[in-house]
Amino acid sequence: MTSHGATQNGKLVVVGSLAIDTIETQGNRAAGVLGGAATYFAVAASFFAPVQIVGVVGDDFPQDELDWFRSRGIDLSGLEVRAGKTMRWTGRYHEDMNVRDTLSFEANVFDGYLPTLPAAYCDAPFVFLANIAPALQARVLDQMRAPRLVGADTMNFYIEGARADLERLLRRVPLLIINDEEARLLSGERNMVRAARKVLELGPTSLMIKRGEYGVLFFSGNSVFSAPAYPLEEVFDPTGAGDTFAGGVMGYLAATGDVSPAGIRKAIVYGSVVASFTVEAFSLDRLRTLTRDDIERRYRQFVSLTSFDVADASA
Amino acid sequence: MTSHGATQNGKLVVVGSLAIDTIETQGNRAAGVLGGAATYFAVAASFFAPVQIVGVVGDDFPQDELDWFRSRGIDLSGLEVRAGKTMRWTGRYHEDMNVRDTLSFEANVFDGYLPTLPAAYCDAPFVFLANIAPALQARVLDQMRAPRLVGADTMNFYIEGARADLERLLRRVPLLIINDEEARLLSGERNMVRAARKVLELGPTSLMIKRGEYGVLFFSGNSVFSAPAYPLEEVFDPTGAGDTFAGGVMGYLAATGDVSPAGIRKAIVYGSVVASFTVEAFSLDRLRTLTRDDIERRYRQFVSLTSFDVADASA
Repeated sequence: MTSHGATQNGKLVVVGSLAIDTIETQGNRAAGVLGGAATYFAVAASFFAPVQIVGVVGDDFPQDELDWFRSRGIDLSGLEVRAGKTMRWTGRYHEDMNVRDTLSFEANVFDGYLPTLPAAYCDAPFVFLANIAPALQARVLDQMRAPRLVGADTMNFYIEGARADLERLLRRVPLLIINDEEARLLSGERNMVRAARKVLELGPTSLMIKRGEYGVLFFSGNSVFSAPAYPLEEVFDPTGAGDTFAGGVMGYLAATGDVSPAGIRKAIVYGSVVASFTVEAFSLDRLRTLTRDDIERRYRQFVSLTSFDVADASA
Repeated sequence: MTSHGATQNGKLVVVGSLAIDTIETQGNRAAGVLGGAATYFAVAASFFAPVQIVGVVGDDFPQDELDWFRSRGIDLSGLEVRAGKTMRWTGRYHEDMNVRDTLSFEANVFDGYLPTLPAAYCDAPFVFLANIAPALQARVLDQMRAPRLVGADTMNFYIEGARADLERLLRRVPLLIINDEEARLLSGERNMVRAARKVLELGPTSLMIKRGEYGVLFFSGNSVFSAPAYPLEEVFDPTGAGDTFAGGVMGYLAATGDVSPAGIRKAIVYGSVVASFTVEAFSLDRLRTLTRDDIERRYRQFVSLTSFDVADASA
């Protein structure tokens, strides 16, 4: 990754799931709400840059949500609407919100879906392959002309069940964004530093490890960066925190075009900021009213939260 | 707490246990090694400031270790040597080193010990009450004339078993340094922000919550500071990490005399630095060869590890 210091056109393609979720926390329940990794990612990224979604929904997907996406500058020309039901997921969080159970999952119209990119997407300089089968992620990458930065996510299901496909994909992915459990499973190492080194041997040159309430570790070359999570009095619904983190990171990078180590560190903090808002309400609800000013304010709070070697550290 | 910007005399009193430990990790074992909270604390603090120990050992305590303490500028005139055996602890770490079992514990000469301070200790501006019974911590505090900063630790055993004594003590302790599990038990809150607020209602104006590999959260007034742990390839033996963290914090504060919010943030990073070395070997072994230069080098690595909003963040 090199820094050009300016955007090419700043466009950001994301492929991933769009879903209808039902979410249960210890005290609350939300049924039939907006979900899916691409959904969370796209809305988060749209605070920074124009986003182009690749995905599929059923004919039951709410029209007003599609209108909301468009109003946020999200290009839906790569979104297929197929006859049938949208993907559905129901999950329940434990009192320890780092733990959740999937109560039900229906792929529905996602079953057999093969992502195809509109011509207008293929020149985008930034692309994010959210958590879908590695073969489908590769298929999207095959259609991109010459992306400047490719990011990807994956999950235990593919690490265990599609290892060969995933390893093939990882050789083409400079930036991998996964959580600590996935890093452990992918590397076979419990220690995060050793896990990171092994993952970086698989192809990515940069690795972000999401640790929930403990923030993010970023490994690239010999450099390590640690960003805390924003300390919140209440995590209302952790769903989508990781996807909005990735959306904030990639959106900020696409907007600035600065993929230097310093640029990536700032992007990680912007991603952490958006994720910290996401968990304050069910589904994407907090992001519906969030403003860029809110984001900038909390970014400054991250500066204050982490500063110790500067004159104004006590802010 | 106010900042005078200069030391008074920089002296730091610590009361706590001195012990002989046997430590088992998944791959290694060390029998009959130096242990105890006051031991770890004092050696860590001695990198920064003169330390005065209050405690008790048996006549089996190794003379060469006492000589080593003295060579580090640690005042042992408040250390009683009683006929009998020194406190002994045997612990075994799980593969997840955040979890350990106590296999055996013998208080030995600590049983019935009542700390008494030499006159030369009573004017020290800094005092740390390491993890012993709150009534004994209070007894030490009663003997101090007018300390500038009082820090304390405690543990689940006293939170559950000596709650009234502990609450009485906490009203006299401006700086509490405990781990996340203790903060949860003391507050009845799982969320760290809510836990911190409740703990601060008990008396302390400042609270450091140690989170092992996830670093430290510091709460004071409306300010929150998050310091990461140093990312290590291997945690060889976590014993004493928390005590050397506290020792580094209090030692740095005693040395600089700067107890302003900015000064405390730096102290937290110095404490984190010393703790990160402690876990690299069994017992206090790594601290035997550690130099102030090693500490300064790793402090700069903490700057690099956490910087994102400055020009040289990519260092």
